[in-house]
Amino acid sequence: MSVVPEYFQGFGVDKAENWNKPKLVKYKHKTVGDNDVVLENIACGLCGSDILTASGQWSDLLRDDLVVGHEIIGHVIAVGSKVTSVKIGQRCGIGAHCSSCMKSSCGRCSNDNEQYCKNNGVGTYNAVDKSAGNYVTQGGYASHSVAHEQFVFPIPDALETIHAAPLMCAGLTVFSPIVRNVGYDAKGKTVGIIGIGGLGHLAIQFAHAIGAKVVAFSRSSNKKDQAIKMGADAFIATGEEKDWTSKYDDYFDLVLNCAAGSDLSLDSFLSTLKVDAKFVSVGLPPSKDKYEVSPFAFVGNAGNFGSSLLGSKKEALAMLDIAVKHGVKPWVEEVPISEAGCNTALTRCENGDVRYRFVFTEFDKAFK
Amino acid sequence: MSVVPEYFQGFGVDKAENWNKPKLVKYKHKTVGDNDVVLENIACGLCGSDILTASGQWSDLLRDDLVVGHEIIGHVIAVGSKVTSVKIGQRCGIGAHCSSCMKSSCGRCSNDNEQYCKNNGVGTYNAVDKSAGNYVTQGGYASHSVAHEQFVFPIPDALETIHAAPLMCAGLTVFSPIVRNVGYDAKGKTVGIIGIGGLGHLAIQFAHAIGAKVVAFSRSSNKKDQAIKMGADAFIATGEEKDWTSKYDDYFDLVLNCAAGSDLSLDSFLSTLKVDAKFVSVGLPPSKDKYEVSPFAFVGNAGNFGSSLLGSKKEALAMLDIAVKHGVKPWVEEVPISEAGCNTALTRCENGDVRYRFVFTEFDKAFK
Repeated sequence: MSVVPEYFQGFGVDKAENWNKPKLVKYKHKTVGDNDVVLENIACGLCGSDILTASGQWSDLLRDDLVVGHEIIGHVIAVGSKVTSVKIGQRCGIGAHCSSCMKSSCGRCSNDNEQYCKNNGVGTYNAVDKSAGNYVTQGGYASHSVAHEQFVFPIPDALETIHAAPLMCAGLTVFSPIVRNVGYDAKGKTVGIIGIGGLGHLAIQFAHAIGAKVVAFSRSSNKKDQAIKMGADAFIATGEEKDWTSKYDDYFDLVLNCAAGSDLSLDSFLSTLKVDAKFVSVGLPPSKDKYEVSPFAFVGNAGNFGSSLLGSKKEALAMLDIAVKHGVKPWVEEVPISEAGCNTALTRCENGDVRYRFVFTEFDKAFK
Repeated sequence: MSVVPEYFQGFGVDKAENWNKPKLVKYKHKTVGDNDVVLENIACGLCGSDILTASGQWSDLLRDDLVVGHEIIGHVIAVGSKVTSVKIGQRCGIGAHCSSCMKSSCGRCSNDNEQYCKNNGVGTYNAVDKSAGNYVTQGGYASHSVAHEQFVFPIPDALETIHAAPLMCAGLTVFSPIVRNVGYDAKGKTVGIIGIGGLGHLAIQFAHAIGAKVVAFSRSSNKKDQAIKMGADAFIATGEEKDWTSKYDDYFDLVLNCAAGSDLSLDSFLSTLKVDAKFVSVGLPPSKDKYEVSPFAFVGNAGNFGSSLLGSKKEALAMLDIAVKHGVKPWVEEVPISEAGCNTALTRCENGDVRYRFVFTEFDKAFK
């Protein structure tokens, strides 16, 4: 493993109030295990979770050089002795989880639900990896990354790096609940997508790609044309059209909420579900926020409210395949990674000034 | 239809504050339609909904002689010209719905989800039936009842009337979400039942009857022995055992909440679900009550929160069949119907003083 430097470099945040001012830091990487893969990074998407974590809205910062970023693309430079699924030199991605127990005795790890592992599911950053001496993980605004091979996804040649990066978290986060609820062949199914942003603009594309009829919801009609371009069959500006629910009575097989706020009219959306259908929220608000729901809101159609976490490796590989076949592409703005670049992109993202995903690039220049 | 008296008799409530003081009243019945069935009633269960409706906790009282009751058993004395599924003299039951549009164009009525009909789903009492000149429906604390044949369930000979009555609402309400979520053959599946009362004591029996492993939850251990007798494999007193969730990690395919209050620890129960499993609440609190939920409570296992409404006729017939085959029997206390009987039973039920269902009988003496 001599190709793996003793220290990695990254752009790290020392405390929550400096969430948008990461500085260049050096840190010891976690021990590379038998099933681990080391990437030399070439790109990383900026996910809203990066801001919610770095600013302490989800939990405290567990280190004072916290590097975020979990839409990582890089080239494999080293593998543990038991790795079989990727090769040195291969272009691969890592999403928001980097490890789990992967024991045959774990009902989740052994059933394509490794992202829900309760024994040792490890987030890509600001998480404690018990299997690596309680190392606090570091994200992908960094020169290198280490992950268990189950969480390392080979990227098809046909996908550009900047388009592959946002699929690692945003793409998989929407893809998994869509295919779990309407299947891989969704002809005849109807999917509502709330919020056209980093998550939503991919949800519209994937739901359309697998054949579902897609209705996009946004507060205003600003993004209408773009939503149609992404593949939406219809568009509703909920802040401008009062009586929209009457158009979609008994209509949706799935409503996927990709908006981060908890202030949407949940009861309205629930009322549009078919019997036994689900409202799944993948947009996560600050952890203190709550939705208020009355059981009565669900009684009229046996509706359900739920959430979802990332997706399995199996789903990630299927997603990448569908992205190639159907030309699903994140709409991205490239930002060369640097202290200034991180500051600008994080600040603009927090202000909603991105259509629809920042991707940091030019890692070779930043990390010499 | 000369056998159908012009006026029915029943025990009716004039206003919400008199919810437990119904008086003997006479009223015009709704027009008997081509698909309607008229029963001369012989028994009616007392459901918690009767109290919540009569006391105005769910909505206003729509008439000043409101007769509640929707666990009705009677004999068919007349049928509309198009009725094909039941015969004069047959012993049948009516649950909490008495009519729906039943049009082939209705996605719900034409797909065994008639209880979710949005066009004209009509509750058995205190509901407006648009198809009958906006007649406000009257329940089963009455001499007779009228319902569309889709909502009239033939009772197998092997079931005693007093045991069949509570199945019409309580039984079907728990049976439907159980079989929709764990199937009719639930071997290898695990079901949690919260609340051992009118609903819960039947949920335990039905889940056990179809082969599921059942864990019963109650605040105290008072009902432990009874729950085991009903078929529970394990019992948890949530108010006495602090660390109970650790026993049921990644455990349940379904948690069915049969408790009426909204003050249970929802997050604890959600944490025990398997991936993609559901928490379904059929215990309905007063309509102003809300559950507070954080999307984070669902993220760890893609869990869902939902509800369910009664069941279809198809499910009702399957339920009755299973009740016969597996000896599922409501635990009942008989009360001869009368003003005094209604007063005592409604008051005791409100105070939780019933194990586990009152059934009014001796209708022939009350309605001469």
